[in-house]
Formats: sequence, structure tokens, C-alpha cells
Amino acid sequence: MALIFWILFISFLINTVVGDETWKQEDDRVKSLPGQPLVNFNHYAGYIKLRPDQEKALFYWFFEAEDAPSRKPLVLWLNGGPGCSSIAFGAAQEIGPFLVDQEEHLKYNKFSWNKVANIIFLDSPIGVGFSYTNNSKDLSELGDEVSASDNYHFLVGWFKRFSNFRSNEFYIVGESYGGHYAPQLADLIYERNKRGPYINLKGLMMGNAVINDITDLKGMFEYAWSHAIISTQVFDGIKRHCNFSEKRHTSDCELNINKFLKSFSDIDVFNIYSPVCLKDKGYKGPNSTRPIFAPQVLWNTLPSSGYDYCPDDYVRKYFNKKNVQRAIHANVTNLPYPFTVCSGIIEKWNDAPATMLPLIQKLLSVGSRIWIYSGDIDGRVPILSTRYSLEELKLNVTQEWRAWFEGVKVGGWVEEYEGGLTFASVRGAGHQVPVSAPQPALSLFSHFLSSQPLPSSPF
Amino acid sequence: MALIFWILFISFLINTVVGDETWKQEDDRVKSLPGQPLVNFNHYAGYIKLRPDQEKALFYWFFEAEDAPSRKPLVLWLNGGPGCSSIAFGAAQEIGPFLVDQEEHLKYNKFSWNKVANIIFLDSPIGVGFSYTNNSKDLSELGDEVSASDNYHFLVGWFKRFSNFRSNEFYIVGESYGGHYAPQLADLIYERNKRGPYINLKGLMMGNAVINDITDLKGMFEYAWSHAIISTQVFDGIKRHCNFSEKRHTSDCELNINKFLKSFSDIDVFNIYSPVCLKDKGYKGPNSTRPIFAPQVLWNTLPSSGYDYCPDDYVRKYFNKKNVQRAIHANVTNLPYPFTVCSGIIEKWNDAPATMLPLIQKLLSVGSRIWIYSGDIDGRVPILSTRYSLEELKLNVTQEWRAWFEGVKVGGWVEEYEGGLTFASVRGAGHQVPVSAPQPALSLFSHFLSSQPLPSSPF
Repeated sequence: MALIFWILFISFLINTVVGDETWKQEDDRVKSLPGQPLVNFNHYAGYIKLRPDQEKALFYWFFEAEDAPSRKPLVLWLNGGPGCSSIAFGAAQEIGPFLVDQEEHLKYNKFSWNKVANIIFLDSPIGVGFSYTNNSKDLSELGDEVSASDNYHFLVGWFKRFSNFRSNEFYIVGESYGGHYAPQLADLIYERNKRGPYINLKGLMMGNAVINDITDLKGMFEYAWSHAIISTQVFDGIKRHCNFSEKRHTSDCELNINKFLKSFSDIDVFNIYSPVCLKDKGYKGPNSTRPIFAPQVLWNTLPSSGYDYCPDDYVRKYFNKKNVQRAIHANVTNLPYPFTVCSGIIEKWNDAPATMLPLIQKLLSVGSRIWIYSGDIDGRVPILSTRYSLEELKLNVTQEWRAWFEGVKVGGWVEEYEGGLTFASVRGAGHQVPVSAPQPALSLFSHFLSSQPLPSSPF
Repeated sequence: MALIFWILFISFLINTVVGDETWKQEDDRVKSLPGQPLVNFNHYAGYIKLRPDQEKALFYWFFEAEDAPSRKPLVLWLNGGPGCSSIAFGAAQEIGPFLVDQEEHLKYNKFSWNKVANIIFLDSPIGVGFSYTNNSKDLSELGDEVSASDNYHFLVGWFKRFSNFRSNEFYIVGESYGGHYAPQLADLIYERNKRGPYINLKGLMMGNAVINDITDLKGMFEYAWSHAIISTQVFDGIKRHCNFSEKRHTSDCELNINKFLKSFSDIDVFNIYSPVCLKDKGYKGPNSTRPIFAPQVLWNTLPSSGYDYCPDDYVRKYFNKKNVQRAIHANVTNLPYPFTVCSGIIEKWNDAPATMLPLIQKLLSVGSRIWIYSGDIDGRVPILSTRYSLEELKLNVTQEWRAWFEGVKVGGWVEEYEGGLTFASVRGAGHQVPVSAPQPALSLFSHFLSSQPLPSSPF
């Protein structure tokens, strides 16, 4: 007994000195998740406290790769919003191994991204999903800068608990407003790496990402017109009367913007050919909304809706179950509000730079691999927005626009640029690419990780 | 016996004088079609000889409305190409009551357009489908003018045999290159009605229709760009270097056009999000091609492909069966070539006016109801082409662009113009709208027939 005591004590001292808390890892292991299919990999979930002096903690769910996790890359997945939960979207609807397909049912996802990598899903920032603060003032201080800082502190804490993954190659993937989070976090890591602790970041990937307000808006209106959702009159009206570099809009601009918004009131802006979730149509409470904040007021008023099979609803119900929360070590502080797919408690968003392009340029220049993809039937952050935004970078094309294949089918098109930037479209996919195109999305991700060009012929 | 003889003789005389051959109708009735589901309406098929002095005959298949045919409108359906069979497409794949879904199988189509109208499918001109000439010189004399004239003579002959439908309201529907056939035939009817025989034409409908070359081309390239199929470089190259009002193109133009064409080599230009028919990929013989002729050479070189389930192939096999041909009274002259979905024997196309807009204007001015629809995921005659073409008419909008509903779902968008023109999109539908969207297509057709606005709210 005395020997064991001394071993534990010395181990504790060592861990404290080098910042290792690997002994906490086992506490986070998810052992009996309700409805979970049998799998042969470990997964872990729990909280990482951001700073010793504050009761602010971010919730994560971490899935080891299906095999040989120690030799696979490590990936952080970030959903956008801002305010939407990576547990509710990335993990439970998109790329996690257990998709919530009906109330209380988990379905094994054979195109889960943990086939090829270890994946951390993070509810970020505080106030999102299961992440919390016990100082309500924090909720009014949120924005891009706080998010990047909190995400960074989360990572530092997470690597203490999972120090066995410190030397794996590390990547960040951001979807939608994750187009802000991913490069901002990458930049912070790059800067902080100079004085440690070192995070082995190799690159980032962004999907249907908000990256440059002016071109994002230009592309959004042009997409709606070229996809015959708005009339030529409304499109011309917006082009003529709106100046999005100004804060205030003319009444002529607003009139046309309102017509634009009305055009999306009965279809799903995130997947223009999908049926809408009819439940959402009748229910406008905070639990079913999927806000997208932005400097422009119009972004807040864009209608939000899910899909016909209403997965947001299933997910919300699943993660509000007490036995599920216990299993994933969530909501340990008994939050005074239910789990929602997108936060209903974030009060405002203080900073959101109008462009991520300079950061993207900087990251390319320091050798980050950057892949940007776009599902081409998303009307919210459409492929035209991303094309226009990338044009602003004025990079030389190294591999011309060409089809890429998933099996015998065209998965989309791809173009490669100098400096390590790849832009790929995913054919027939909406805002959440892996929902519409799970197999092509996994292929895209695998090729990104291995830095291999996407297949240029059927295979 | 003597009495019967005299009755028949007098009846014959009367019919000859007033142009009635209703006594021939029963011979054309299709009694036992292989694989046909049981139905309670009559259908007829056979040949109408175009002129007494020539061995040129067009093949038709006529389906009476499911109930009360005498009180329902009569509709002529015309597929395009030029050179594609309305039997192979309209009847067997799109809007007929019996769809060929697998080799030798007919499936009852619960969204058949004979729910609301009597429908004639016509193989036109000679050389297409089962229609024939026994003077091979005729095949080198084809074009829009001959087609309109032959279609008109077909109708005159058909109304002699089906004189019981002479007073029904009559409409023409043309798909694709049927955008030429429909207004040209309508105009000929309008002109000939002045001196009889009178055809009770009320209006026409056109879907994904070739109507104005310059804007059709402009829209086709812009559609490929805005749907992220071609690169910005190729799109800019075409805009800069190509002048489609000239017969010859510069080499810079051709270079970019070739890149444009290559972009469609692995997807189905007729439905950009559909998988392609893989059989077609390996087989380039005349039986599987779906040519679209036009003055511009590029139109001939556009790749042709069907869908993943390869319906062209099933249809071709079904209509080459001897017992099927016997049942529908087809191929009575033992044609020296097999039935193909699009003609492999038409040698050239002599005339194709660059625009149908003046004819459309004229027909509107004489009171024709004209509805133009467009499946919005067709890359061949895309919705942008039709929008640009209709803009050329400079008609005042009477009902602004708005969503229309099929049940609780948005079926598409619709705009109404002065003079009786309606333009409707069909959401998520390809070149052959009723294939992708059978229920919205039937609703569109019904509203056209009854001249009622499409539903503006869910129902």
C-alpha cells in the first residue's frame, strides 16, 4: 500500500510539472451509451475547464480512430452558427460514428470520419450545447476573439488529458461559421507555438464556410438568382440599391432584401432541393432555430429550417435524456436550460471580422495545408460565394478545374492553387456536406489528410 | 346482306365527303399490349398516312382520358431532338400511363397526364421512332418546315379517324426541341384554320424548350458556371472569344467550348445531379445516342447520356419486341432498321430558325394560352436560357415571381405576364420534367389546361 501511494504521488508530481493529466482520461471514457451499436474503438466525453480561476468549461466528445488510433491524425471538428453544437451536428448528424436517426436510435455511420482519423467534436464557445459558464456576464462577451482563445485553451487542456495524442498530426475542420473559427484558431496555435506548448497543427479544412462578407453576400444573391429562386427584378434591385460595405441600407435595398428573404421562407436555404422539416414550419421556439449571426442584420433574419426528416428534433430529444447525459458525462452542473442544437442563450456577438482572407493567406505562407470545400446546393453559403471569395486571393492555379470521382460517379469538381490551397465542390450536397454526400465527404477528408489529389477518373 | 351493303356504301360516301374515317378507329385500338396493367380506358395506335400520293406515314399512340374522355381536352405531345421518339420518351418514360421501368415490364403511372386529358404521342418527323417513308430522299429533306407541315397533315388525318374529338379543346405540348415544333405547328394551324379544316387549338405548353439560340447559349454557359461545372476561366474565355451570331468560331472560342463540353463528359447534362447511365458510357452506337441538332456545331457534339437506371435501354428493347410492335400496329412495313429512342437515320436538318420568339409573340396576340416551364437542374436547355429568352419579349409582369406549391412542398416558382404567358420552374427537375417530378408536372399540366394559377400556398 505504501509503495502504491508513493508511485501515485510521484506520478502526480510528474504530471503536474509537465502538464500531463492522462490519468483523468479513463474517467471520460464513455462506457454504456444508450442505443449505441457495438464498436471496437474507444470514445471519451467530458469537460475541459478553460482556466483555473474561472468556472467556464467546454464540452467535447472524442472518438478514437476505428483502428490504430496512435498512428492516425487527430482532428478537431467545429460547427458554426455561431452558436450551434458540434455534438448536435458534426457528431450526431454528419461525420460521427453514431448518427441519431430517429428518437432514441443511434445508427452506425459507415462513412464516419473516425475511419481515418481521431475526431474531437467541440461544443464552442460557452453557452453552446453542453458547454457552460457559471458567470452569465460571459454570455454577453462572446465573439470571434473569445471563441478562438477559448478553443485554444480547450486544446491545451485536452492535450494534457490526452497527452498520448500530442505527437499525432493535428488538423482543424470548420463548417459554415467554422470558416471563422478554423483559421482563427489555427493562427492562434501558430503564434502560441512559438513559446509553447507546441500543438502539431498541419492544416485546416473548411466547408461551406463564411470567409469574406462582401463576396459571400454577392455570391448568395447571385446563387439565388442563377438557381431561379429570386426574380431578375429582385436580383437587379439588390445589385442596384444595396451597398454592403455600409452599415445602413436604403429602403429600396431593404425592400429587395425582404423579397429575397421571403423567397426562402418555404424552402430549406441550406439545401435548396430538399424538402423542409414540416415540424420546424410550425414551431419557432429557440430549440428548433439555427441562427447564423453576422454583421449584416439580414443574416439574422434568414429563415432557418431543417430537413424533412427533422434530425434537429431527434438530436435535441436524444441529448436531453438524462441517461444519455450521464453516459457522456454532460450537464454535470445541472444547467437551467435544455440542450438545444443551436444556442438560445448567447446574447450578442461582439466581433466578427469581415474577412478571413488575410488569415488564410498568412496560414498558407507558413505552410499550412488548406482545403476548402463546398456542397453545391447550399443557398446559405453557396459555392458562388466561395468562388468569389477565393478569387480575391489572386492565387495562381496549379491544377485546373476538373471533375473528381467517388467510385464511378463525379463527386464534384476541384481546383488547386499555389501555396497548398485546394478548392473542391461536392456535387448535389447541401450546407452540411456529409449529410447529403457521406461517401464523397469521407473521400474528400481522407485525401485532405493524406495530401493526395482527389481521383481524376472513375475507380 | 343487300341492306347492309347499301348502309356501308352510303356511310362510306358520307365519310369521304365530310372527311370522316371514324370507321377506321376500331382497327387502331390496342387490345392486348404485352405486360400492360389492367386499365379502364381505351388506347389506340397506328399510322396516319400524310398525303395520298406519298408513302410517308407518322406513327401515333393515343390514350383516352381515364374518365369522361369526350369532355376532356385533347393534347398532342411532341418530343424533340430533333429526331427523338415521343413514344420512347413522352409515352414510355414521362407522362404516359404505362412506363417501361425494366426490360419487358410496364408500370402503371399514377401521375399519367391522361388523368386529365386525352393524349396523342406522335413520332415525328418521318425517320423517327416508328414513323417512316419509303422514299429515302425524304430523309435528306427534313427540317422545321417539313416537320410542321407533316405534323399538320398528321392532325388532319387523325381528326378524320377520331372525328369524335374534333370539338374538344386542343393543346400542343413540346419538350426540348419541341419548343420549335409546338409554336410552328400552332402557327400553321392558326393560318390553315382560316380556310379549314378547323382545329380547335386553344394553347400550347413548352418544357425546357429550345426557343432562342443566342439567349439559349448565353444561359447554357452561365448555368454551367453558376452551377460550378465549368471554371471561371472557361466561362470568361467563352464570353470573351465567342460570338454565336457568327457561323465560324475563333480558335480561342473553340478551345474554351471544348473545355465546356469536356465538363459534361462524366455527368448527365440533362440532369446535372443525376447519376449517369453507365451502360451509355461504354456504348456509343446510334441506339443509345440522344442527339440535339442545332445550327451551332457544338450542339451536335454535346455528350449524350441517360440516367443511372438506363431507361432508354429498356424502352428500346421493349419496342423492338415483335409482339409489342404487333400489339400497337407499329412497323407494319418491316423497317430495315431497329426501333431507336432517337433517330440514327436522319441525314441532315435543313432549316431551324434561330428564334421562336416572334412566333410566340404572334400566337399570344391571337389569344393562344402559352405556358413555358423549366426543370431547374437541366444543363442542356437550362432555366437561365429560358429566363433570358423570355426577357427578350419585354412583356409586362402581371404576377410577380413567387413560389408555387405541390401539396406542402414548393413545386417551383412562377411568373405571369401580360397576354397570357406563364413561366413556371419545376424545382429539382431535369430536362424531362415529368421523370424527376411526376406529381408537380401533372399539377402544372392540369393548371395549364384549366387556365388556373398554380397554388400559391401549401395545400
